[in-house]
Amino acid sequence: MSKTTPGNFFEDFRLGQLMQHATPRTVTAGDVALYTALYGPRFAVQSSDEFARAIGYPRAPVDDLLVFHVVFGKTVPDVSLNAVANLGYAECRFLKPVYPGDTLSASSEVIGLKENSNRKTGIVYVRSRGRNQHRQDVLEYVRWVMVRKRDEAAPAPAEQVPQLSDAVEAATLGGACPILNTAAYDYALAGAPYRYQNTARVHFNLFSEAQGRFGKRLIYGGHAISLARALSFNGLANAFQVAAINGGRHVAPLFAGATVFAWSQVLARAELPGREDVGALRLRTFATTDRPCADFPGPTGQDYDPAVILDLDYWALIPR
Amino acid sequence: MSKTTPGNFFEDFRLGQLMQHATPRTVTAGDVALYTALYGPRFAVQSSDEFARAIGYPRAPVDDLLVFHVVFGKTVPDVSLNAVANLGYAECRFLKPVYPGDTLSASSEVIGLKENSNRKTGIVYVRSRGRNQHRQDVLEYVRWVMVRKRDEAAPAPAEQVPQLSDAVEAATLGGACPILNTAAYDYALAGAPYRYQNTARVHFNLFSEAQGRFGKRLIYGGHAISLARALSFNGLANAFQVAAINGGRHVAPLFAGATVFAWSQVLARAELPGREDVGALRLRTFATTDRPCADFPGPTGQDYDPAVILDLDYWALIPR
Amino acid sequence: MSKTTPGNFFEDFRLGQLMQHATPRTVTAGDVALYTALYGPRFAVQSSDEFARAIGYPRAPVDDLLVFHVVFGKTVPDVSLNAVANLGYAECRFLKPVYPGDTLSASSEVIGLKENSNRKTGIVYVRSRGRNQHRQDVLEYVRWVMVRKRDEAAPAPAEQVPQLSDAVEAATLGGACPILNTAAYDYALAGAPYRYQNTARVHFNLFSEAQGRFGKRLIYGGHAISLARALSFNGLANAFQVAAINGGRHVAPLFAGATVFAWSQVLARAELPGREDVGALRLRTFATTDRPCADFPGPTGQDYDPAVILDLDYWALIPR
Repeated sequence: MSKTTPGNFFEDFRLGQLMQHATPRTVTAGDVALYTALYGPRFAVQSSDEFARAIGYPRAPVDDLLVFHVVFGKTVPDVSLNAVANLGYAECRFLKPVYPGDTLSASSEVIGLKENSNRKTGIVYVRSRGRNQHRQDVLEYVRWVMVRKRDEAAPAPAEQVPQLSDAVEAATLGGACPILNTAAYDYALAGAPYRYQNTARVHFNLFSEAQGRFGKRLIYGGHAISLARALSFNGLANAFQVAAINGGRHVAPLFAGATVFAWSQVLARAELPGREDVGALRLRTFATTDRPCADFPGPTGQDYDPAVILDLDYWALIPR
Repeated sequence: MSKTTPGNFFEDFRLGQLMQHATPRTVTAGDVALYTALYGPRFAVQSSDEFARAIGYPRAPVDDLLVFHVVFGKTVPDVSLNAVANLGYAECRFLKPVYPGDTLSASSEVIGLKENSNRKTGIVYVRSRGRNQHRQDVLEYVRWVMVRKRDEAAPAPAEQVPQLSDAVEAATLGGACPILNTAAYDYALAGAPYRYQNTARVHFNLFSEAQGRFGKRLIYGGHAISLARALSFNGLANAFQVAAINGGRHVAPLFAGATVFAWSQVLARAELPGREDVGALRLRTFATTDRPCADFPGPTGQDYDPAVILDLDYWALIPR
Repeated sequence: MSKTTPGNFFEDFRLGQLMQHATPRTVTAGDVALYTALYGPRFAVQSSDEFARAIGYPRAPVDDLLVFHVVFGKTVPDVSLNAVANLGYAECRFLKPVYPGDTLSASSEVIGLKENSNRKTGIVYVRSRGRNQHRQDVLEYVRWVMVRKRDEAAPAPAEQVPQLSDAVEAATLGGACPILNTAAYDYALAGAPYRYQNTARVHFNLFSEAQGRFGKRLIYGGHAISLARALSFNGLANAFQVAAINGGRHVAPLFAGATVFAWSQVLARAELPGREDVGALRLRTFATTDRPCADFPGPTGQDYDPAVILDLDYWALIPR
């Protein structure tokens, strides 16, 4: 008899349910090196202790999306082990910087439930939080995911769909960024003389490919997000920190062997209350597979260009 | 003329011969990150400095099997460069915890020799030891390996086969585990509300695949051991430390591209003298390729289910 | 409209032009672990903090060629984004040791320009420097590279080809090596009882393979250099530090899936002024793909054995 934890099925979730996820992880310089090798981010703040110190950090912070992946990963065994599809993110904010040596743990609260009409699956909405060893929240975000039912005949929990913001309010951004000494921000070292350019278009081949016995492996959607973010360096080298993710769609799956391209659109600029040092850019980054982005493939009417795999809407901080 | 060291052949070994192996290595947080990325272990003690400190470690210790692999690797140029097959392990004990920054070196003593009847090969038994920078033994184990002769006509050394224990005595376990404050051991963070469950059944795809020019590459057997151990987390999340390996068989080779499954059987429980904090479980973990383990494939009479690649018998520590 | 930085084309370079490259990087124990996993170097000085301290380093220094790759990588966006071929290196010297935690930045000066007769491309010569956070040069080298013109009709800059040394003067070597306590250099731990042997011949399979959409990916030439250097351990285990690279040729491209072999020739031995502790060996290391080096494949008249991919001429330090 197998006693392996089978994960939660749709009918196991309850509104308001709190989950403390295993396993806490100390993020080290080794994790950062692996992340850098996988995705190739070149933002100076995260790459160089000296650069970070000069502008006001105690040392180079851990890449925001590595923080996201560590926290996200912890939620999987409880939230999405039996997922059919990861549907979306919203209200994602980075609240405190994370440094190598910090230990992150994660918890989630069920904030919405909705059975699908086929009664085989349902959508679970959770608000997840990442915390450091000082019990400070470093990250929070909402995610919704389609989860299988164990038993189609099981009664569904009461339906509730949370009201989610279309975008994170700019006024709430910047908690993960100390007050910067922008006079010491060296634009030549940072890799771009302009504070930002309008678009990014870069290609990059995958680090490794693999085939499982079931055919192609589906690549974790966060992989696509991190690749697109790293590619955005070209043109957005000074947009050094993800402050919030307004929402994102994994439009199509990503398979090993594909070459990922990306481009970005600047949706808005915002000043932050009380901050003379940094402002925020609202960016929409599209990633494609096996299709260069010189002509900016994106939404086409109700649909997307068939090469698009990611549509990500986020706020990034940039020196003023 | 090539002067490259050709390694030792069977007739080069002498009973009682001592070998100090090159090259000492400082194990870093970088090595730990790579190990984690390759195998995916999620045991809280090794993952989180905070979790480890709370229960009595100065910080998170290095995964036991990473220690094993580093020490094992050092022995290869002297012991098994000319090996045909790595036949088995016994009497493997973890004696002191290892932390990032510690420097490990390895030595081996030849404790047995037996020429095969075909006179082309012989079996070499060594007891290998890993040591830290304070000249403390952190690990010891016996390994036997079939090694080619350089010259079939060479006289064989005197035959001696060592008497090896079937299992490491439970009373000798636990040296690598400080006295724990088990009240601070958080079972929710550790990932399992039960101290242990009877079985683990998990699957995981390989991190990378590769093909050499000779066709398939044979994957290092230690790889299979580390994968199986990482997979055992599901069901054995609190069996956080390998205290000893009683023996192990690489039943069949592992090739890139295969998907590894594993399940575990609890053979025995033991109290440890003078330890109120931890006890020991004797576990037998089987790994298979491309075959789920829902029906627990293992030995079948004198043989094994054809999918089995590993049969590992070990003691793990678990909070009481 | 795409505003991505398109890199420099041949007609964009000017003699004497100075470029400060983005992005500075803090080299960590994580980067070292990845480098070790990729190439497998086993030189004791770089592998063990204890070994390094015993002979006079504050701790294990970062592998010389990892320093080279980090600095080289920084120069690519400005120097060789539009390169057709990386043609050669000269006058490469390692000037200061680099330790984990040091932050490296890079700059280059254009020291030569020569349009090709087809007017489609030209050769750019740069002297590149790597610097640590104390503004000390840790590395310098000359590189020349064939770069496309954006516009074939564009006038070429004035032609100037720099005079480059055939070899780095032995008297200038050793800046990256503190005065060693050679009595504490343990040849058994270092892996070779002899100070050096004449040749190395080892094979090693690649860590990962990959195929981009354009067919085979060309592997970065520095990869071949690092593999060949790691392979040279067998026979040259005590030639622990690259002090200078006199020149090098990527004779043929390297593709994923190939197995790399290497062998080395000792061209010269040199005493270093004021150094009783270490001397220098001038080595010529050849690497091949899919061809063992037992018969030392190398130059054949004006050409090379067809399996040769690398011909590297360098100075390495070795205890006296």
